[in-house]
Amino acid sequence: MMQDLSKCAIHTITTKAWDLPTACAKYAAVGVRGAGVWRQWLEGRELAQSRKMLDDHGIAAVSLVRGGFFVGETAEQSQAAIDENKRCLDEAAAIGADQVVLVCGAVPGMPLNEARQQVTDGIAACVPHAAERGVKLSIEPLHPMYASDRSCVNTIGQANDIIDQTGADWVGIAADVYHIWWDPDLEQEIKRAGNRIIGFHVCDWMTPTTDLLNDRGLMGEGCIDIPGIRKMVEATGFDGWNEVEIFSNRLWATEPDEFLKNITEAYRQHV
Amino acid sequence: MMQDLSKCAIHTITTKAWDLPTACAKYAAVGVRGAGVWRQWLEGRELAQSRKMLDDHGIAAVSLVRGGFFVGETAEQSQAAIDENKRCLDEAAAIGADQVVLVCGAVPGMPLNEARQQVTDGIAACVPHAAERGVKLSIEPLHPMYASDRSCVNTIGQANDIIDQTGADWVGIAADVYHIWWDPDLEQEIKRAGNRIIGFHVCDWMTPTTDLLNDRGLMGEGCIDIPGIRKMVEATGFDGWNEVEIFSNRLWATEPDEFLKNITEAYRQHV
Repeated sequence: MMQDLSKCAIHTITTKAWDLPTACAKYAAVGVRGAGVWRQWLEGRELAQSRKMLDDHGIAAVSLVRGGFFVGETAEQSQAAIDENKRCLDEAAAIGADQVVLVCGAVPGMPLNEARQQVTDGIAACVPHAAERGVKLSIEPLHPMYASDRSCVNTIGQANDIIDQTGADWVGIAADVYHIWWDPDLEQEIKRAGNRIIGFHVCDWMTPTTDLLNDRGLMGEGCIDIPGIRKMVEATGFDGWNEVEIFSNRLWATEPDEFLKNITEAYRQHV
Repeated sequence: MMQDLSKCAIHTITTKAWDLPTACAKYAAVGVRGAGVWRQWLEGRELAQSRKMLDDHGIAAVSLVRGGFFVGETAEQSQAAIDENKRCLDEAAAIGADQVVLVCGAVPGMPLNEARQQVTDGIAACVPHAAERGVKLSIEPLHPMYASDRSCVNTIGQANDIIDQTGADWVGIAADVYHIWWDPDLEQEIKRAGNRIIGFHVCDWMTPTTDLLNDRGLMGEGCIDIPGIRKMVEATGFDGWNEVEIFSNRLWATEPDEFLKNITEAYRQHV
């Protein structure tokens, strides 16, 4: 079934050749109405100016990316992470995004259970500020290949476990097909998550994958059953944006307008 | 606690500069008494000759590596895989190895549940031959980053699920720290496995990992709590070999005798 673009959002990192005003103009020109805004794209101007750029082009700020990184080796680091996440919540509120996507963090060699406790504590410490700003913290489980240094939260099940402790009023889950497609417990944990799922990210898994970070595929280029996972997610009641988040040295090397065209075509056919 | 080398085995692929007779002589010279024998190391001579080489140096064939690859797109491919695994069992028996390590297989784009069913069926079809030869089939769950093309079995839990169906008399599990260290259910699934665990493989996870296949570390170079996982495994009653299985372009580029010395030192300190 061909999808229209009404729920298509693009992460600014995906089209990283373009700064925020250019991305807004380009997205709007092809009918894309949402953006996952990476913080770097907000640098160098007032937040109100960024918001005006988005508004002027009719682009919704779907998510602010990325907060998290709660795992540290000292209490000072933990507090600094909490402070930084509060700034993320402020920024999200300022540009009209209703969620901050969290890369939870990990420190190589630290026991994962200990790291997960720090993540839980860090998120809990940010919840009052999230409530004040009216912005949710969105836990993005990352693929287990990032467990050593980027995220000790690697499954929807673990995100659910954390939210069981922090409460679900201001904490949700960003489900990215790239990170979760392999999970044998996927369907049951998405069901368990229910309306905790507040974000849905799409791209594809390449075979072979030649780089752990920057070899994602366009939707349809790889092996992930994106419509199948989308169906599981929408069965929870989710009717939000589908955010295209692609890191790819190969695709970044293509001509940006052509890449954007390929994104929208891939979205229509394979999401 | 320093470990002696009495349970140290090395996979022949780890020291891939050396053919079987050279590897046997080199291992024996440093006090290593076991080898995980990759099939390529048996090519070009009678199996009895390979066995004699191992015996003459006092090297036990700990495992034959690798069978599996059960997932195919046609019935012919599935049957060919079963036939090949029977040959693996024959070879293992011929060199005195009591297990064949299985890389279960996957086909990009095939639903993982379907692939897992093929694996279960393939293993079940080989069980009578395993019993005849007195050689076990050892399921090695692979890290989820290999789920698209190498193995649809990515956790000890999934291996347990398969063995629940095939029976445990002739099917066991090879627990490789590289593949399983991130798993939040690791301890409980190792307990569930109990005496199904018949192999224990060691190396380390590097941060960053620069290659999905060939950037493993020497024990102690990375973030894995190897003694901690070994303790979980030994709590099941496991008292078999600890098999050093390292794929590393970086380490393969070092001088082979020096690399072997580093392996035994890393083993003594970090396993």
